[in-house]
Amino acid sequence: MQADIVAGGEFDLIRRHFTRPSPAGMLGVGDDCALLPDTGCATAVSTDLLIEGRHFFADVDPRALGHKALAVNLSDLAAMGARPTAFVLGLALPRIDDAWLSAFAQGMFALADAHGCPLVGGDTTRSLAGVTISVTVFGAVPADGALRRAGARPGDDIWVSGPLGDADLALRLLSGDSAVPVDDRAAALAATRRALEWPAPRVALGLALRGLAHAAIDISDGLLQDLGHILAASGCGARVCADEVPVSAAVSALPPAWRRQCALAGGDVYELCFTAPPEARTRVAEAASDTGAAVTRIGTIEAASGLRVVDGAGAPLPGLPHAGFDHFA
Amino acid sequence: MQADIVAGGEFDLIRRHFTRPSPAGMLGVGDDCALLPDTGCATAVSTDLLIEGRHFFADVDPRALGHKALAVNLSDLAAMGARPTAFVLGLALPRIDDAWLSAFAQGMFALADAHGCPLVGGDTTRSLAGVTISVTVFGAVPADGALRRAGARPGDDIWVSGPLGDADLALRLLSGDSAVPVDDRAAALAATRRALEWPAPRVALGLALRGLAHAAIDISDGLLQDLGHILAASGCGARVCADEVPVSAAVSALPPAWRRQCALAGGDVYELCFTAPPEARTRVAEAASDTGAAVTRIGTIEAASGLRVVDGAGAPLPGLPHAGFDHFA
Repeated sequence: MQADIVAGGEFDLIRRHFTRPSPAGMLGVGDDCALLPDTGCATAVSTDLLIEGRHFFADVDPRALGHKALAVNLSDLAAMGARPTAFVLGLALPRIDDAWLSAFAQGMFALADAHGCPLVGGDTTRSLAGVTISVTVFGAVPADGALRRAGARPGDDIWVSGPLGDADLALRLLSGDSAVPVDDRAAALAATRRALEWPAPRVALGLALRGLAHAAIDISDGLLQDLGHILAASGCGARVCADEVPVSAAVSALPPAWRRQCALAGGDVYELCFTAPPEARTRVAEAASDTGAAVTRIGTIEAASGLRVVDGAGAPLPGLPHAGFDHFA
Repeated sequence: MQADIVAGGEFDLIRRHFTRPSPAGMLGVGDDCALLPDTGCATAVSTDLLIEGRHFFADVDPRALGHKALAVNLSDLAAMGARPTAFVLGLALPRIDDAWLSAFAQGMFALADAHGCPLVGGDTTRSLAGVTISVTVFGAVPADGALRRAGARPGDDIWVSGPLGDADLALRLLSGDSAVPVDDRAAALAATRRALEWPAPRVALGLALRGLAHAAIDISDGLLQDLGHILAASGCGARVCADEVPVSAAVSALPPAWRRQCALAGGDVYELCFTAPPEARTRVAEAASDTGAAVTRIGTIEAASGLRVVDGAGAPLPGLPHAGFDHFA
């Protein structure tokens, strides 16, 4: 019995695609645990499961999938104002496909490198059906500096970054939803697909909003549903002007009901929704500009509970067709 | 559109079974990230994926499954000498079954409470097939006090905790392996099943071995394979006496080849294998006794590379039928 018993398929797989030198001061892949150095800050932690056939299509570009699996978690750090420090990866695969794994790792590491967020550990196993990806990401944030959901106050402006709705439109087109009222489906998909597959987490914006924003959340399940989490946590209500919500040209070209559906209820966005006092407007705009993010004021936090959605003339809008994404709905 | 849009099935599920008051100084379930307070120590991190049909049977007692999903991660902390601080849970479920979830949560929280290790965040989603569980656990350990794999030195004693082999025997019996040479299968299963389904992570032993052990690993893939990781990381070899490896009465009753197979190559054990200098024998025995663990010396670290397995008379043993567990073999 030789020590090379460890050179089995599983371990070679990990070595080939996921082992990189550990950053200084960290113990990475290859022991029972990773060791993250003390930062003198609180550790922010977020975890997400991505399931083939539910969160992504089986034939998705593996490079995009590697990017997105990490991006959705970095987006949670952004929403807390935390600086990414490291992540771990769990990967269940139906088979070992070197080309697929290489592309997946490339997409993931490119985003990780851009954020100085090394992979420090993980677990791989064979799945019985499809690919399952589990990412847990860590960030550093001063204990009293984190952007929480519970800090919104009546009178706060409500802001969102980025245009919303592209990812939802792309998903409907990729899913073959024949009801989507667009003339040129290929052109609409080409214009929106990148938002679905390559979301850019707003980490720099989140860091710049520390000390400015009262509350923040990243939009994963739809603007209204995620804003609802801020309202519930903060014990207040809000008025949102549907037609102020920023959308791309592709979404803007949709009929009004569809446009609002995509922008207000569409998920998979990974932009930030945050509240800040009106006196911080200039500083918020500067923070966004400094970090390359577009931000738009879409409404106001109110003392009365409930979320009131109005059109550009201030008239109440009836309920949207879907309130947001519920994984078990 | 009212704020109670957040009261959908998924969110109710999380609230009903997994929301508990946050421990003092922590932000738990219910924001974009959990926040763990600064401990002044390094943070040890371990993550594991458990897949239905691969790591557990579909009809396993959900209470035992909840226990084990956390136990296997706590075992990794034990192997680093880290004190558990918190964990996050990812759960993909084919449907919402309240009774199943309640039992799963009970098993998980009972072990979490016993180790002062609160659940601080997670993600739930619907799976297309079977249950997938992802647990990531955090621990605190002084940066220079962690038990690493790389510290073994020639002359060190090799120790293991607990009897080994019971989980492997139970798994073979539950899998209907007709070749297992036992007369009374029901009695053998009754004697060994608890080791498979309710492993007790050796957290207290790991903490007590800080400053005593040179290297440590927890046995998840089989003693010889996991000891091989210590040897590879430490750049040395070892001699192990197969018949010194502690086994239960049920495993002891097997024919020698089967007994050795279960004890040396059987996985799913979650006992510790560690090395320590001979002059520390008394203190190792005291550390084990103080923490309620049984430990046994099974061999010696040697300068010459390779893992030499001998019988009680010192004669080399031929290769075992299986070298260890490879998820992709």
